[in-house]
Amino acid sequence: MNIYSIDEPAFLKNLNEEELVQLASDIREFLIESCAVTGGHIGANLGVVELTIALHKYFDSPSDKLIFDVGHQAYIHKILTGRSADFATLRQYKGLCGFPKMRESEHDVWEAGHSSTSLSAAMGFAKARDIKGEKNHVVPIIGDGALTGGMALEALNHIGSDKTNMTIILNDNEMSIAPNVGALHNMLGRMRTNTQYNKFKHGAEGFIERLPQVGTTLRDLADRFKDSTKYMFVDGIFFEELGIKYIGPVDGHNFEDLGAAIKTSKEYNGPVIIHVITKKGKGYHPAEHDKLGIWHGLGPYKIDTGEVLGTKKTESWSAFMSNTVLDRAHKDESIVAMTPAMPVGSKLTKFQNELPERFFDTGIAEQHAVTMAAGMAAAGMKPYLAIYSTFLQRGYDQLLHDVDRQNLDVLLGIDRSGLVGADGETHQGVFDISFIAPLPNITLMMPRDEKEAEMMIDLSFATPGPMAIRYPRGNVYGIDMTEDRGPLEIGSWEVLREGADAALISYGPTLQTVMEAAENLSREGIEVKVINARFIKPLDNGMLNALGDSDIPVFVIEEAMLAGGLGSMISTYMNDQLYTNKIQRLGIDNEYIEHGDVDLLLRDIGITAENIVLRTKQLTGETHEKNTNR
Amino acid sequence: MNIYSIDEPAFLKNLNEEELVQLASDIREFLIESCAVTGGHIGANLGVVELTIALHKYFDSPSDKLIFDVGHQAYIHKILTGRSADFATLRQYKGLCGFPKMRESEHDVWEAGHSSTSLSAAMGFAKARDIKGEKNHVVPIIGDGALTGGMALEALNHIGSDKTNMTIILNDNEMSIAPNVGALHNMLGRMRTNTQYNKFKHGAEGFIERLPQVGTTLRDLADRFKDSTKYMFVDGIFFEELGIKYIGPVDGHNFEDLGAAIKTSKEYNGPVIIHVITKKGKGYHPAEHDKLGIWHGLGPYKIDTGEVLGTKKTESWSAFMSNTVLDRAHKDESIVAMTPAMPVGSKLTKFQNELPERFFDTGIAEQHAVTMAAGMAAAGMKPYLAIYSTFLQRGYDQLLHDVDRQNLDVLLGIDRSGLVGADGETHQGVFDISFIAPLPNITLMMPRDEKEAEMMIDLSFATPGPMAIRYPRGNVYGIDMTEDRGPLEIGSWEVLREGADAALISYGPTLQTVMEAAENLSREGIEVKVINARFIKPLDNGMLNALGDSDIPVFVIEEAMLAGGLGSMISTYMNDQLYTNKIQRLGIDNEYIEHGDVDLLLRDIGITAENIVLRTKQLTGETHEKNTNR
Repeated sequence: MNIYSIDEPAFLKNLNEEELVQLASDIREFLIESCAVTGGHIGANLGVVELTIALHKYFDSPSDKLIFDVGHQAYIHKILTGRSADFATLRQYKGLCGFPKMRESEHDVWEAGHSSTSLSAAMGFAKARDIKGEKNHVVPIIGDGALTGGMALEALNHIGSDKTNMTIILNDNEMSIAPNVGALHNMLGRMRTNTQYNKFKHGAEGFIERLPQVGTTLRDLADRFKDSTKYMFVDGIFFEELGIKYIGPVDGHNFEDLGAAIKTSKEYNGPVIIHVITKKGKGYHPAEHDKLGIWHGLGPYKIDTGEVLGTKKTESWSAFMSNTVLDRAHKDESIVAMTPAMPVGSKLTKFQNELPERFFDTGIAEQHAVTMAAGMAAAGMKPYLAIYSTFLQRGYDQLLHDVDRQNLDVLLGIDRSGLVGADGETHQGVFDISFIAPLPNITLMMPRDEKEAEMMIDLSFATPGPMAIRYPRGNVYGIDMTEDRGPLEIGSWEVLREGADAALISYGPTLQTVMEAAENLSREGIEVKVINARFIKPLDNGMLNALGDSDIPVFVIEEAMLAGGLGSMISTYMNDQLYTNKIQRLGIDNEYIEHGDVDLLLRDIGITAENIVLRTKQLTGETHEKNTNR
Repeated sequence: MNIYSIDEPAFLKNLNEEELVQLASDIREFLIESCAVTGGHIGANLGVVELTIALHKYFDSPSDKLIFDVGHQAYIHKILTGRSADFATLRQYKGLCGFPKMRESEHDVWEAGHSSTSLSAAMGFAKARDIKGEKNHVVPIIGDGALTGGMALEALNHIGSDKTNMTIILNDNEMSIAPNVGALHNMLGRMRTNTQYNKFKHGAEGFIERLPQVGTTLRDLADRFKDSTKYMFVDGIFFEELGIKYIGPVDGHNFEDLGAAIKTSKEYNGPVIIHVITKKGKGYHPAEHDKLGIWHGLGPYKIDTGEVLGTKKTESWSAFMSNTVLDRAHKDESIVAMTPAMPVGSKLTKFQNELPERFFDTGIAEQHAVTMAAGMAAAGMKPYLAIYSTFLQRGYDQLLHDVDRQNLDVLLGIDRSGLVGADGETHQGVFDISFIAPLPNITLMMPRDEKEAEMMIDLSFATPGPMAIRYPRGNVYGIDMTEDRGPLEIGSWEVLREGADAALISYGPTLQTVMEAAENLSREGIEVKVINARFIKPLDNGMLNALGDSDIPVFVIEEAMLAGGLGSMISTYMNDQLYTNKIQRLGIDNEYIEHGDVDLLLRDIGITAENIVLRTKQLTGETHEKNTNR
């Protein structure tokens, strides 16, 4: 059928199985062609074509609440709710969001981006429904990887004991971003292996026998628990132990089975988990046979070969960081590397292959990962934890309470710091400075290039206590690494350019833009000092004091939140010391930054050479005119 | 025996059971008498007297690593490691810490305070041991409440699949701070009910049969899984499903059983969980029969009656907030109240009793609680989530990603904001402003008294979007609530006192000290304006602009981290606007604040009327002398 003609999912109610299969095929073709141009999370979406169709056929969105965990697998949901025409702008500036978005559609009742939030959200929706006496279904759809996130397990514990009526769809594709890890994963694997797919016939006696009676009490459960013979024929004992009715495993590409399972779940007044087995990348050979997670989320590709287009020649920042740590680990046996489920994204697979006994993938479990790193450090190791800036938010208390408060020798590699582009507002790495800088013991850095990054890594492994190196998405510059820049001292900034009219301070890749602005200013006769604030904490007090004594205007530019950022720290320090420099800041001012090309986003924020030139000229030309009465 | 003569735990190796029982009795007596004077977490510690003795008898600390979750139940551990004489200073300024503390003893290998960190830490210690080829035992001791924390479940998932050798002690006292909730709790209850205590005889055939062979592979596990009859006779199937050997339940007050279980666990090369049943408050009638969690942590008490001394007459802040919300909930059916395991601490039991269907205790599960609140708000409710400032750190990503980013109508009651006193550095509520203020949508407030708190609650329920009200530990003032202060507008500060020599800005209880300083200054002829910055975010730009125009010195005083605090925001704003006021800040400067009487801690920080007077005089007397060349 014509995908573009789809407006609302109601048409699905009238389709027979043959038509559903044809629709699935048409949607797959549409997705493969569309994502070949725009890029996107093609693998995950190809795996849930039939599942999403079935959800919209057997539930009534938006009165029934479909809550997609993570959310990057909601493309089919977007198609079925009338957004096909927008796919040409997928994940682009001002275009269709790659995640559910409330303002796009009333069918998007919950937004996500980070994993493992759907069960807690569903609990909220379900309790609100019950309090209001409404009757809608609440349907969180969660992957096997996301299920290992602590908050999902917290929610399961609550849902199971509360007996809240909801239908949890466990989308088990045997692979989160990377091959999954953990005991839950092993358990799901045993279920798949031992039982194959259960063929559901709605109402068939064999199945109904396995359903507990509605209104099951704890005493009944205890009785059932004693009745071992009967109980053992029920799969999913893990979930049943938690008080959640288990149905499955179900073939996620078979409409009949999906329909039967969903219909059955609706008859049960309590929490049900339907264990659906799907194949990531289903129906597109390169994605279906992807073993490395390359097809998780990617840019444009050639449809016939699956060749990913536009890959740059230099190494990614992630690869540079991980390979440098690996090199040092070969020389220092106390170094270990850790990642919460991002061995591919953080490019730690080489480390994993070469030093498997010193590599740890915790799965989607940021809290555990951060505190485990603290434990390793307390036991005398030097853990390197590579973690995306946005996901470190999940380990904030652990960073504070376990790593920093105990002053332990953990090195954080904060990946994807700054704007990340297409993933948008849930993934921008712009809050980490604000939440890390108040921690008393940590040293926080961002290198201007890979040589400086190498120096920071060596400094960190040579220095006790917690340290963190931010690095951006994208590739390193490919510079000469043999240059000797001398020793790197904690808290030492670097003057990249001298000038007496103003001081421009920045860090990381933004320094490129600042240097360009400085050169343009020079052509207009304004000479600015450019400072590489490679230590975001501690500040270089000596250099700031010198600026204070010279009383020249100071302008801090950063690809991060202004609140709690470097500019805020500098501004405050100068006031504390009673310096009177004019101090201006440029960065993200109290807003979430949506998805889109990073250059376009930076233009909106004002981080361009042109705007820095303009602001600097205003600053150097201005007096404290607001206070002429001083 | 003489408790004060204990220096190292090695003496336990030679004690027979009778002597152990006598020692336990002596330690109980010591604890009851000691805590009657100092206060402390008496209930939890009375429950683990035998358990802690057994751990030190059958393991060799510090080469074996005892890792206490939460840590407030480590008093017996402290006694057995030579710290009895310090108990007179327990939780007091510069005295014995109420939690494990590395600098106190080599036996304290890990510090805690927040719950659920021990398993992750243990994983770190265990992997470090394995990498280094060492042979020590790693023994996390975790309560049944802490086990529901997401990070503990993340760790279980990792430990079980990794097959890491460790002995997890599950201290199941059927009650965390409040009666426990959740499916795991129900499950543990079934285990207790169904099997009673297993009598362990070390080496007895019946038990050994139930142990899997060392080196169990996944295939073996799968085979075992199929063998239903045999499998069902093993308790703890939940843990076994996760790959963790279950031993128990064991009577936690019986040395023979404890010894047998620990010895058995040592023979198994992999993760073992020993399910120990203890009775909180054991051996002291008032604590043993406490059903409300009063004896969890408390001040001095009369030994014979259990009467808690020194309870103040006015209502606590927690009670005031919760009762006011309850009053509003009676009038507005969309209001619900939530707590992560703190119904007693946050004084929500009255709400729970009167409106049980609109009250939710998630257990120790801050992440889930915050996102569930977001889900409720997305479904049209007005959730009030009472959460301690220090525990909100656990829900930071959820606050950002789910509540604030989606701009949902959640009201946070941030309990124990500011210094908390005896609980010390793990519990000080001094970071929340720094991590909340950068969030774009939230409104953050702190009232100067309970009347203002009431106004803030009403404002919050009448205003869409996320809002947060900080309130301190301790009691309200007992002021006249009938006073009409007019409407409260978002972002509006209040002038408490006029003066033209300087402006002193603060919020919350600190305003009392600031007003006292202002009066003292007035006696010396210095008239300061005192501003109640009741909105920490957004700032009152109008009032700040007026200050800027007047160019008088500004002094911000706050019981919070300076980095990212209100003073930092004001300082930065004034620079942004190119005002030239001298701006000084007083607060916590890049350090963790340990336990002790809050007044003494405030004195160390410098938040006293005397110091504010001194600093203000310096400020009003100073010129910008560092920049005389301007």
